[in-house]
Amino acid sequence: MASSILSDCSSCATSRLLPLRRALHPPTPRFRPSPGPAPLPRRPLLAAATPLPLLPRARRMAALAAAASSADPATVLADASAKIIDGKLVAKQIREEVGVEIARMKDAIGVVPGLAVILVGSRKDSQTYVRNKKRACDAVGIKSYEVNLPEDASEYEVIKHIATFNDDPSVHGILVQLPLPRHMNDENILNAVSIEKDVDGFHPVNIGRLAMQGRDPFFVPCTPKGCMELLHRSGVEIKGKRAVVIGRSNIVGTPAALLLQKANATVSIVHSKTKNPEEITRQADIIIAAVGVANLVRGSWIKPGAAIIDVGINPVDDPASPRGYRLVGDVCFEEASKVAGAITPVPGGVGPMTIAMLLSNTLDSAKRIHKFK
Amino acid sequence: MASSILSDCSSCATSRLLPLRRALHPPTPRFRPSPGPAPLPRRPLLAAATPLPLLPRARRMAALAAAASSADPATVLADASAKIIDGKLVAKQIREEVGVEIARMKDAIGVVPGLAVILVGSRKDSQTYVRNKKRACDAVGIKSYEVNLPEDASEYEVIKHIATFNDDPSVHGILVQLPLPRHMNDENILNAVSIEKDVDGFHPVNIGRLAMQGRDPFFVPCTPKGCMELLHRSGVEIKGKRAVVIGRSNIVGTPAALLLQKANATVSIVHSKTKNPEEITRQADIIIAAVGVANLVRGSWIKPGAAIIDVGINPVDDPASPRGYRLVGDVCFEEASKVAGAITPVPGGVGPMTIAMLLSNTLDSAKRIHKFK
Repeated sequence: MASSILSDCSSCATSRLLPLRRALHPPTPRFRPSPGPAPLPRRPLLAAATPLPLLPRARRMAALAAAASSADPATVLADASAKIIDGKLVAKQIREEVGVEIARMKDAIGVVPGLAVILVGSRKDSQTYVRNKKRACDAVGIKSYEVNLPEDASEYEVIKHIATFNDDPSVHGILVQLPLPRHMNDENILNAVSIEKDVDGFHPVNIGRLAMQGRDPFFVPCTPKGCMELLHRSGVEIKGKRAVVIGRSNIVGTPAALLLQKANATVSIVHSKTKNPEEITRQADIIIAAVGVANLVRGSWIKPGAAIIDVGINPVDDPASPRGYRLVGDVCFEEASKVAGAITPVPGGVGPMTIAMLLSNTLDSAKRIHKFK
Repeated sequence: MASSILSDCSSCATSRLLPLRRALHPPTPRFRPSPGPAPLPRRPLLAAATPLPLLPRARRMAALAAAASSADPATVLADASAKIIDGKLVAKQIREEVGVEIARMKDAIGVVPGLAVILVGSRKDSQTYVRNKKRACDAVGIKSYEVNLPEDASEYEVIKHIATFNDDPSVHGILVQLPLPRHMNDENILNAVSIEKDVDGFHPVNIGRLAMQGRDPFFVPCTPKGCMELLHRSGVEIKGKRAVVIGRSNIVGTPAALLLQKANATVSIVHSKTKNPEEITRQADIIIAAVGVANLVRGSWIKPGAAIIDVGINPVDDPASPRGYRLVGDVCFEEASKVAGAITPVPGGVGPMTIAMLLSNTLDSAKRIHKFK
C-alpha cells in the first residue's frame, strides 16, 4: 500500500519540466539524483490507494484519516507529524502589513512607493508573472510602472529604460523580468539597476554585503528572504542549528545559505558535485531545498523533527489531472511530512512568499530613500 | 609520554594574544573552544620529552626518529604520516613566477606593475608589514608607492589619496594597511578603492562575484587565495570533497569558503555558534582553520588523511623561548600531523603566501588593465 506513495515520489525520473519552472525559478544547475535513495520502511497501515493531495494540513489530515479509517489512529498520527507551514497565509499577513505601512507613509509624508517592471519579449509565463506583480502592487497601494519591449530589443534599449527609472524619484524599485532573451547579457543588464533600487537583490554588491560580517545588503533577494520569513514566523530557531541548503543558484540557494549563516546557523551547501547528499542532509535541523528536481529529497534524507522549506516547483506528468501535470517540490512531501517537524507544501509554501517579499522590499526602499521610519 | 604533547596543545587556555596577531590577521570573532576535546589514544612509543619543533618535514622526521630511536620504526612512521605543505617554498616559487612574468611584460609593452600602500598611524607591526611588502615588490620588479599619514589624519584625507591612486595609470593595485585608527570607518575607506585596483579583494563587489555562480571577482583576497594555491600545488583534489572552514571573517574564512565552493567542494562553515564543531570537522577531507584560537583543532577532530590548511598565527607563552612566546596555529600540529594526510606548519605555511598572492594580484591587475596576456 505504501508503495503507491513511494512510486509517487519516485516520479522524479519521469518528471516533465515545463517552461513554467524556468520562469518561476530560473535555471539552476541540474542535480544528479543519487543512485537510488534507500527505500523507506514499509508502513503497513497507511492505506492510500491514490496519491495524497499536496495540500494544507487540515485536508491532508482528513485524507489520511479517510485512507486509514480501519487503522490504528496512533499510527496515522505518527505518519503525519509535521506542522504544515502555510505560505499562503503568511504571505497574506505580510501583504496586509505592507499595505498598512504604505498607508501610514502616504498619510505622513505623501509618498507612495513605486515599482517599475521591465518585460522583454512575449513569453506567456513572464507576462503572467508581471501581471500578478502588478495586481499585488495595486492591492497594497504600490504604484507600478511597466515597460514592455519586443523580443528583439537591444541591450542598450533595456539599459536606457533602467537608467530612466534609476533617475525617477517616484520609482523606488526596479525589476527586470527574467529570463531575458538569449542575445542579452543578464549581468550587464542587472548591474545597470541602481543598487538602491535593486529590489530583487541580485546585484553583486548586495550579494557581497550579504556574505560579509558586519555589512547588510540594501535588499535581500525575494525568494530566500521569503524562506527565512517562513522559518521565523513558524518559530523555527536558527541560531546554532545545522542547516543544509540544497542547490546553489544565485537567485535562491546561494543567498539562502548566506542568510542562514548571517542568522548564525552552521550551514552546509549541497550541490550537483556533492557525494552522498543524503548523509549531509540527514544531519540538518533546517533544510532549504532549491534545486529544481522533483521529489529529490526523500524521507530517509531527513532528520526527525527537521524544518523543511521546499523552494522547488516542478511539474510532473499526471494523467489524472485536467492539465496533464501537477506541481511537486524538490522534497517528497508524503515521505518528508512523516519525519519532519515542519514543512512547506508545494504549491502554497514558498511560492506566494516571493511576491510578498518584493512588495516588502519596495516599501523598504521607499522608506529608506525618504528616510521614513 | 604522549601527555607532554597533549599538554603542549592544551595551552590554548593560557595563550597570550599579542598585537602581532591582530595585524597579521585582523580580529575574527573569538571561537569558544568546545568543552574538552576527546583525548587521543595513547601512543606508547613516541618518546618526545620536549615539544616537537614546528618545522619542515625533514627536521620533524629527524626529531621524531631521534625521539623514538629505541622504538619500532613502523610506529614512528604511523605517528607522523602527514605530508608537510611547505608554504615558504611555494611562496618562493610564486614570487619567482611573478618576477618572470613582470620581466616579460616590461620587455613586451614597457609596463611595470605599480602597488600603492597607504599606512595611517605608526603601529610598529603595520610599519613592518608595509616594509616587507615594499621589499617583496622590489624583489619581483613591482614599483611601490607609499603614503604615510599621521594617526589623527581624517577619513577625507585617506580617501583623497585613494582617489589620486585610483586615477594614476602607473598604479595597478591599492592597499590600505589595516587596522585603521578607530575614528575611521573601514567600510567607507575600503569602498573608495576602485574595484579594478582592489588587490586585497575586500570590496563587496569582489566578495559578491566570488559568491555568485558564473561570475568571477576582479581579485581574490590574498590569504584565502594562498590557501587554495597551497591545496592546488600540493595535489589535493577539491571537487566533490567535503570541506570545512573554521571561522567566517571577511578577510579569510568567508572568502575561503566561497573559493572552496567555487571549486566544487561541499562546504560547511564552522563558527563560534556551532555546536559540536569537532563532529562536523571530522567529516572533512579538507579543513581550513582561520579562527585565531591557538591549538583549537585537535587530532580527534580530524578525519584520517584530511588536508589541513592552518591560517592561525597565535602567540602562546613559552618561557623557553628567548622572546617569551612562540607562534602556533589554530590546529594542534603535533596531534594533527599524525592523523592528517597533509598539513601546513605554523609558521612557514600560509603566512608567506599572503604577500606572494598580493604580488600575483598586482601583476594580474596590470595585465588586465593593459590587456597583456
